[in-house]
Amino acid sequence: MRIAIGQMNPVVADFNINIKKVIYFVEEAIKEECDLIIFPELTLCGYIPEDLILQGDFSKRTEQSLKIIESLSRDIAIVCGYAKKNYGKGKPFFNTVGFFSDGMLRVEYRKRLLPNYDVFNEKRYFEEGDKPRVIEANGVRFGITVCEDGWNTEFSPAYGLYSIDPVEETVQSGCDILLNIAASPFYYKKVFLRETMFSNIAKKYSIPLIFVNQAGGIDGIVFDGDSCVFDRDGRIIKKAKRFEEDFVVWDVNNEKGKIFPVKSDDNELIFNALVTGLKDFIEKIGAKRVHLGLSGGIDSALVSVIARYALGSENVCGIMLPSPYSSRSSIEDSLLLADNLGIKVERIDISHYFEVLKNELPVSIGDLKDITEQNLQARLRGMILMAYSNNNNSILLNTGNKSELAVGYATIYGDMCGAIAVIGDVYKTKVYSLARWINKKYGKLIPESILVKSPSAELKPGQTDQDTLPPYDVLDGILERYIEKGMSIEEIIGDTGFEKETVKKVLNMVQRSEFKRKQAPPVIKVTSKAFVTGFRFPISSNFQGVKNEDA
Amino acid sequence: MRIAIGQMNPVVADFNINIKKVIYFVEEAIKEECDLIIFPELTLCGYIPEDLILQGDFSKRTEQSLKIIESLSRDIAIVCGYAKKNYGKGKPFFNTVGFFSDGMLRVEYRKRLLPNYDVFNEKRYFEEGDKPRVIEANGVRFGITVCEDGWNTEFSPAYGLYSIDPVEETVQSGCDILLNIAASPFYYKKVFLRETMFSNIAKKYSIPLIFVNQAGGIDGIVFDGDSCVFDRDGRIIKKAKRFEEDFVVWDVNNEKGKIFPVKSDDNELIFNALVTGLKDFIEKIGAKRVHLGLSGGIDSALVSVIARYALGSENVCGIMLPSPYSSRSSIEDSLLLADNLGIKVERIDISHYFEVLKNELPVSIGDLKDITEQNLQARLRGMILMAYSNNNNSILLNTGNKSELAVGYATIYGDMCGAIAVIGDVYKTKVYSLARWINKKYGKLIPESILVKSPSAELKPGQTDQDTLPPYDVLDGILERYIEKGMSIEEIIGDTGFEKETVKKVLNMVQRSEFKRKQAPPVIKVTSKAFVTGFRFPISSNFQGVKNEDA
Repeated sequence: MRIAIGQMNPVVADFNINIKKVIYFVEEAIKEECDLIIFPELTLCGYIPEDLILQGDFSKRTEQSLKIIESLSRDIAIVCGYAKKNYGKGKPFFNTVGFFSDGMLRVEYRKRLLPNYDVFNEKRYFEEGDKPRVIEANGVRFGITVCEDGWNTEFSPAYGLYSIDPVEETVQSGCDILLNIAASPFYYKKVFLRETMFSNIAKKYSIPLIFVNQAGGIDGIVFDGDSCVFDRDGRIIKKAKRFEEDFVVWDVNNEKGKIFPVKSDDNELIFNALVTGLKDFIEKIGAKRVHLGLSGGIDSALVSVIARYALGSENVCGIMLPSPYSSRSSIEDSLLLADNLGIKVERIDISHYFEVLKNELPVSIGDLKDITEQNLQARLRGMILMAYSNNNNSILLNTGNKSELAVGYATIYGDMCGAIAVIGDVYKTKVYSLARWINKKYGKLIPESILVKSPSAELKPGQTDQDTLPPYDVLDGILERYIEKGMSIEEIIGDTGFEKETVKKVLNMVQRSEFKRKQAPPVIKVTSKAFVTGFRFPISSNFQGVKNEDA
Repeated sequence: MRIAIGQMNPVVADFNINIKKVIYFVEEAIKEECDLIIFPELTLCGYIPEDLILQGDFSKRTEQSLKIIESLSRDIAIVCGYAKKNYGKGKPFFNTVGFFSDGMLRVEYRKRLLPNYDVFNEKRYFEEGDKPRVIEANGVRFGITVCEDGWNTEFSPAYGLYSIDPVEETVQSGCDILLNIAASPFYYKKVFLRETMFSNIAKKYSIPLIFVNQAGGIDGIVFDGDSCVFDRDGRIIKKAKRFEEDFVVWDVNNEKGKIFPVKSDDNELIFNALVTGLKDFIEKIGAKRVHLGLSGGIDSALVSVIARYALGSENVCGIMLPSPYSSRSSIEDSLLLADNLGIKVERIDISHYFEVLKNELPVSIGDLKDITEQNLQARLRGMILMAYSNNNNSILLNTGNKSELAVGYATIYGDMCGAIAVIGDVYKTKVYSLARWINKKYGKLIPESILVKSPSAELKPGQTDQDTLPPYDVLDGILERYIEKGMSIEEIIGDTGFEKETVKKVLNMVQRSEFKRKQAPPVIKVTSKAFVTGFRFPISSNFQGVKNEDA
């Protein structure tokens, strides 16, 4: 028996494009003489259309696609996913996997464990299924599980979140091969963890396991693909590409596993995830060209490199927007960077505009405060970058990092402008390590002087980030423990030995700046908890004992 | 027996303030010789701290508050709500109601129906309880239900969303009075609906029912209070204030119901909800003063009136920002409006800044397109309004309406700036009806010329909204059916007879502008489906068959 994996990169809620992709993969599988092809979770609508799923003609469009799948299944058996209307009590849909053969829908399985944490919100749309399902093709029995269904075994970090274990029940109901049909979002510590987990499941039950994952990015969420076939000893037989759409064939009788899960380099994983997230976002909104403000700092340098690898240097424009406080080296470093990357570079001096505003505004709104002047510069830049956007049909990239976004060290409607926050889930210390990894891997793209200078917003003379913030290793140490690990002030102090005043100051900044994050662009997720999708709280709350003092 | 209702307006996650409020109400109840006091859902942390609930010391702070409640219960029996840690399998907390008397926690009830739609996300945090609970005080048996627990009876619009009916089970387990402890968010069609629903439940089971609701606003969500005591015939005996914190005492033996639920005026409800939502948002972030751009149009006029009633005229400043395309009447109307309201007014002409930018920018970014020039004006205004914010410690109010936000007829980082979208859930046609209602109720605050002029963004000569958009009654007719009712294109056409091209054009605009809404301020919810909290979809999706063509 030959089994194909169609590791698809769907456009969410675009039934036309998605069914075309299915047809393409089915034709490939037939050419390769496969008996069965397996697609990822919610194949027909992509993961996940959010509230569009509740709109009137969503079901009709699903039904239309299912007719096509039925007709395709005359030539090959097909396993694919879709949102099926629930006509009974409970939520409006089931997260469904259908098995199609000989031109007909044969069996439907309903996902049983519905994740509702971090980026997941499945209980908003779906009702749980209540039993395991085994399908039979070519005399082989396949047990179906869908994504989260596989995450309540003893090998999972989420173990204990649910009271049933669909893997156990499915295997007990009798099958020869176990399937996990998934749309499993990426974060960099997850790739090895997931592979090891499935390897252990295969080994425990001594059963081959096929994991079929969605690939590509949807807004800030990246699906890393990495579809895998494990043999009954938990060794990897076949592996699809990481991050990209891919097609893989496994001949059940002729191939044995060789490789055990191997840990990948964190920097490489993160860099490729960011490239994928950006590339797919720009493509899926139907755009091509992007631009960004080049400050001469490390953040915009890193985003330039990501953009160049995501979209090609011909589609990236760096715009230098020097003010009276910009250092000469900022310009020189930016020019050198742009030259290294082969991207276009523009220079628009904001000094004159800033002077005009600074000199004329006080009449009406009082003498300008320091913070007002600093924000004015950032917002002038934002305004010019958006004018460039309007005028050149180009998408503005946001270059803020996670440390800044966490403490609100950014100007709303200023440097927080942009269609997507490319490195909004990358801590500043990680920004440096990514930059060094890039220079090692791709040659010295990022000028050394950018790597060694003190980080500065350059909004007043001699300013550095550390005038306002603790050193970045301390800051990030606090932030990661608070955001990703949910630690309290006391736990952070106990874990690090940092001073209480520093920890409190940082957490107060996090608390006070939620209003900025509520208006932040989508963030490409690379850690286990990203802002916007994974960590949200009310603005008018007061957990850490402070109030917002400015807006 | 005398029962007190503590209709609290909590600050979310502020355990100190909330416990002080509890103590104040308990002291009042003791003075009034009550035997029992009942508080709303999640009394101690407020509804709802979102992801803060998952942070390290949230449980510790809850436990500290519970110790105080126990000690208070030496003098009076207390029913209050909190998030209790789940040490077993499943989600990390239970949405719990505790019954305290004689200095001890006596009984805990766990909410059984956890809403996970619209603004609700309770399955992210809570595990369901599995049984009804009856408590006894002064020989009277009280059956406990929490908010959604009461919404799966045949009288509820949500009937059928769950397979159990906690009301039925609780009554069957034997009780004399039914409690519903709630944090039930407002939308204007809900107030009458909810009162009628509880009235019918009381009548059906021939049992008195006490509904205790949270009051006040949390970011964009408004809780309307309206706590009520119904007699066994479903008539209202006691009713707490709408929208405000309130304290009500019911003497079980001496009072009978008289009033049946009566429908309130929609405009009055919406206006008061907006006033409450704005007032609480500004107070709870610790601010006082607000400002807004006064364009001479109906939207900013309405927001000015709301702000004046929410915060007092001395705390509101209107800023006129005329451009070369502003009509003279815009200035005159704005001045008259500000005079009527007694609010401060400033004038900052943007013509010169606009000229400077317009004349200097082309060198770098090409001849300015029409759309670029229009957006530049809106963003210049946004920048100046934010400079005023920084310089005067004043909060910028966003004045965009729901129709604009729906179709993206607004400039991101321009007129979309602001800490809160005061009328972001009010359709343009409703803006007019609110304005007329205000003029009738409060005297002619809004100049007639503002009410009769053609809506215009005044970003180019002679521009009106209807150059770009269908007439507002058509637009809103389409939008309400799409957003609130989830209708498909065909259903909307069938329901209205509008032209297919118009409907498609509008829905395409909705689809293409999601990227703007993702960066919109919190919206004060007044309809059954508000943007930001109630209707979100991916930017890089393609449901209606179009792509984003600009950003």
